[in-house]
Amino acid sequence: MLAVRLAEGRVHVEPARRPRRPKNHALVRVTLAGICNTDLELLRGYYGFVGRPGHEFVGVVEEADSPSWIGRRVVGEINLACGNCATCAQGLGRHCPTRTVLGIVKHPGAFAEWLTLPEVNLLPVPATLTDEEAVFCEPVAAACEIQEQLGKLKGERVAVLGDGKLGLLIAQVLQVGGAQVHLFGRHPEKIAIAERLGVQIAGTGLFDVTVDATGSASGLAQAVSITRPRGRVVMKSTVAERVQLDMAPVIVNEISLIGSRCGRFAPALRLLASRKIDVRSMISDRYPLAAAAQAFERAAQRGCLKVLLTP
Amino acid sequence: MLAVRLAEGRVHVEPARRPRRPKNHALVRVTLAGICNTDLELLRGYYGFVGRPGHEFVGVVEEADSPSWIGRRVVGEINLACGNCATCAQGLGRHCPTRTVLGIVKHPGAFAEWLTLPEVNLLPVPATLTDEEAVFCEPVAAACEIQEQLGKLKGERVAVLGDGKLGLLIAQVLQVGGAQVHLFGRHPEKIAIAERLGVQIAGTGLFDVTVDATGSASGLAQAVSITRPRGRVVMKSTVAERVQLDMAPVIVNEISLIGSRCGRFAPALRLLASRKIDVRSMISDRYPLAAAAQAFERAAQRGCLKVLLTP
Repeated sequence: MLAVRLAEGRVHVEPARRPRRPKNHALVRVTLAGICNTDLELLRGYYGFVGRPGHEFVGVVEEADSPSWIGRRVVGEINLACGNCATCAQGLGRHCPTRTVLGIVKHPGAFAEWLTLPEVNLLPVPATLTDEEAVFCEPVAAACEIQEQLGKLKGERVAVLGDGKLGLLIAQVLQVGGAQVHLFGRHPEKIAIAERLGVQIAGTGLFDVTVDATGSASGLAQAVSITRPRGRVVMKSTVAERVQLDMAPVIVNEISLIGSRCGRFAPALRLLASRKIDVRSMISDRYPLAAAAQAFERAAQRGCLKVLLTP
Repeated sequence: MLAVRLAEGRVHVEPARRPRRPKNHALVRVTLAGICNTDLELLRGYYGFVGRPGHEFVGVVEEADSPSWIGRRVVGEINLACGNCATCAQGLGRHCPTRTVLGIVKHPGAFAEWLTLPEVNLLPVPATLTDEEAVFCEPVAAACEIQEQLGKLKGERVAVLGDGKLGLLIAQVLQVGGAQVHLFGRHPEKIAIAERLGVQIAGTGLFDVTVDATGSASGLAQAVSITRPRGRVVMKSTVAERVQLDMAPVIVNEISLIGSRCGRFAPALRLLASRKIDVRSMISDRYPLAAAAQAFERAAQRGCLKVLLTP
């Protein structure tokens, strides 16, 4: 099969062996995959990554231990948990200390014709959803994670900093959840996507909750500066460099800085199926897997939103 | 009267005018005051402070609008709130944007023979408490603030980093509240004070909640490193310098960093009156107000706990 390999800052597309399915795993034929900012960071050497990236995908199960999965269209949770430790027992497999992560930590990713995942990680895609919608399940889940951690934020005044892919999804998800969302960004054409849902553009005053999705080291200080005393700042930017922050305003104003990462897929699939958020407008481009190098270049361009890969 | 003035990194003890009591304020004759680490930082120029410090005190009301206060022994909340804004309406006068703060922000402090405070800030001291105990009300309230923000932490595994004054009080308050507290410090004789209450010394593994009371810029990274996924880190150290922090583990492990500052006095007074925590063992020395310069020197010595000033 054809697969992408990142090494030494370059995107290689190479023939590779079809992955072998361990016990309790399914073999999934990838039908569509999405490039995430994390993939661009992996290319830059974040985490010292070398290998096959890709964690946003839709596919069809070709082999599995449970016959009921065969032939089903699926998405899949990206954290492969041990299932036996205290963290897993709390339902927090996403934080299992010995986990691997599809396309990120020691488990070959979705930028290939086939991948394997434990059957417990799979979720069937509702028939009403197209592949182009379902492929957003992972980033929508990451946006929904904020609601799992902080609640729906109904009626709360929320600022989202950053109008990249994740910022746009977060703004939409929280607005649909009932928050009064203000989106701070630099690209009117991107913000317009969220505006149609009632998201407001920028805004003044202090916010109850501020989400930093800028992807920049300076985003956090800006987030703190517009958050009210006892308010909450959600950190959604994984920035490779160390962050320099004056903690005095955080302490004096008793602000909480809350790290937030992956989310559960089930609520994200339900939200996508409800069609209350607009992900189709966020597709900027589409490439065959063989042109993955160009796809990565395109995805890194200023103003570009989601770039899809078709094996 | 005699009063302390900090300026240019030095402690001056000088004659000063007795403060004039504004409307709704009480004039309090200070009977005992305590030196806090914040006072040492003010001396070093933190906040660009010049003026009269002191925010831990016990005193007797000599003048007030309400006759019922006259002659009463009191402690007093240190934040002077406007009482009219939205923040004050929520009962969060401690965060009022136009507040002044006794001995810290634009309100002359307690290292003097008299001070003024709004009557609403005063709390009568129960007769069973000595001045030497009641003078700890402000730092005990700062420790209790963690419980107001995070709950009692009953049964939770809590690490407290730092065996200074605040760390010792926090360890005691949380242990009495039902948490399983582990205190990390460098001074066995200090830790012994908390050990008598069942606090454990150091410990391994990850903690549900970690409190950084080290007062050092490196404390926060250490706190993050010993906190479990989805755990909480309470930031109690006001460090003047900027903190450099790798946010990746905070985000990946979805840890919350929670700023925590002043607390309400009422629960602190109740806790002191219950005698469940030991503050008397924390008194290292006592000086007359006239010897405030020596008292500040003594308080800054390694291993020193609370130094008291008697006007």
